[in-house]
Amino acid sequence: VLSYERPVRFQEVDPAGLLFFPHFLTYAHEAMEKLFEPLEGGYPALVTLRRIGLPAVAVHSDFRAPVRYGDLVRVETTVARIGNRSLTLRYVFVRASDNVQAAELHHTVVTTDLLEMKSCPMPDDVRRVAESHLETPPSSSVG
Amino acid sequence: VLSYERPVRFQEVDPAGLLFFPHFLTYAHEAMEKLFEPLEGGYPALVTLRRIGLPAVAVHSDFRAPVRYGDLVRVETTVARIGNRSLTLRYVFVRASDNVQAAELHHTVVTTDLLEMKSCPMPDDVRRVAESHLETPPSSSVG
Amino acid sequence: VLSYERPVRFQEVDPAGLLFFPHFLTYAHEAMEKLFEPLEGGYPALVTLRRIGLPAVAVHSDFRAPVRYGDLVRVETTVARIGNRSLTLRYVFVRASDNVQAAELHHTVVTTDLLEMKSCPMPDDVRRVAESHLETPPSSSVG
Amino acid sequence: VLSYERPVRFQEVDPAGLLFFPHFLTYAHEAMEKLFEPLEGGYPALVTLRRIGLPAVAVHSDFRAPVRYGDLVRVETTVARIGNRSLTLRYVFVRASDNVQAAELHHTVVTTDLLEMKSCPMPDDVRRVAESHLETPPSSSVG
Repeated sequence: VLSYERPVRFQEVDPAGLLFFPHFLTYAHEAMEKLFEPLEGGYPALVTLRRIGLPAVAVHSDFRAPVRYGDLVRVETTVARIGNRSLTLRYVFVRASDNVQAAELHHTVVTTDLLEMKSCPMPDDVRRVAESHLETPPSSSVG
Repeated sequence: VLSYERPVRFQEVDPAGLLFFPHFLTYAHEAMEKLFEPLEGGYPALVTLRRIGLPAVAVHSDFRAPVRYGDLVRVETTVARIGNRSLTLRYVFVRASDNVQAAELHHTVVTTDLLEMKSCPMPDDVRRVAESHLETPPSSSVG
Repeated sequence: VLSYERPVRFQEVDPAGLLFFPHFLTYAHEAMEKLFEPLEGGYPALVTLRRIGLPAVAVHSDFRAPVRYGDLVRVETTVARIGNRSLTLRYVFVRASDNVQAAELHHTVVTTDLLEMKSCPMPDDVRRVAESHLETPPSSSVG
Repeated sequence: VLSYERPVRFQEVDPAGLLFFPHFLTYAHEAMEKLFEPLEGGYPALVTLRRIGLPAVAVHSDFRAPVRYGDLVRVETTVARIGNRSLTLRYVFVRASDNVQAAELHHTVVTTDLLEMKSCPMPDDVRRVAESHLETPPSSSVG
């Protein structure tokens, strides 16, 4: 589990005082970028130099408890599934002050050639990083 | 179907040139606000004067085609389900230039007393607006 | 004077209920994009196809009255100065409900080759649009 | 000088690949919040519990070098002036990789009673924090 902590920002809450819900996806993306920091140059180099990105094809999210300006949120990221050209990340959002789970999010992304704007095989280094956070590591074959 | 058109803004695209995916949820929220314009004072008065809000409890979204800076997006909003204290909105995102469906989003919200921060019965005027956009209107009882 | 109207969005106010002040610059940029709509393909084509942009080199802003969620803001844009490679836009922000001036902003931009990331002579069509909104039009020579 | 480091986020750059300029003001606000962390409960408690805020009345900014996705920005904050009900903060933005100054910003704020929405005397603890970062500390009076 990769842990990423993030204060809820002044400009991210809505008139009801709650984190505006699309920002949960923003936090998820930041957690994903942190997960891919072991890549050379990190996620920025993947996107801006190698021109490979991980656009979302699906997001499923459940929101369970509010977070507010001043709260610290801990995002716990794992990889739920790895395919040939896609992977699904799972994020659990925890309110750090009381360890209440605020939200859970599944995020499926496709490795994409950004110049052609079509899917491409998952680069080896991306796969290795993803595998190191896989929830149930593949059991090694026996015999 | 309520139609809401929205240009993709300069500041809303990512380094890959694509609409940053959390903004689809932002557009959805704007479409929901437009849907509730018939309320007295619109959605702003509901939230800031009556202190009733519609926080999300779940969002499911599928992203099917990219949209970019300069694209015009048409959000077509319907109400898929109405409960006692919750409702599910459905948004279809269409790239206006070629009528390609870019995304589809289900968004479940709960009518919430923002002072107590707990759910409350759905106000009658909110229900009436929601019903007027219900995908399959309830058949009137016969006989 | 080019007039651009814009509702203050749910997600743009801060915990004090006021438009978060950086968004005034966002609104200004939107007004500038509207001003350049007469270009072929508008501002999006200038940036994404011709790869010419108008990055800011200076912004001076005064904030005079608050605007809140639900307010409609009218941005009145003029061009205060045109140079060889730069121009200064002036924006007056008016709260539409009571015509109170909320803010005033001066914004100096430089015509920039985005591939080389250095200034370039102002394209003729950009200059023509800017001149058509110049506060004090150049007097025509007499005699 | 208070130093605040901040990576440029994926979602904060524009189609030209540059930090969208209003975000410099957002970074400045974050640096100001960090400066006021010594207050009990920090800036969040000031705004949400004591209902005192520091809305901007003026911002003057110069942008000197671009910053991009993946850059780390160091914001160096000082207090240039302290009045009875206002103070002016100065922020120097430095691109951490090469120590190039990217921007400089002056930001004048007024201590404001957010319930009445009018200026109020600067609270003592706010003044003490501001004074501890004053560029030219007041010379102590001599005999």
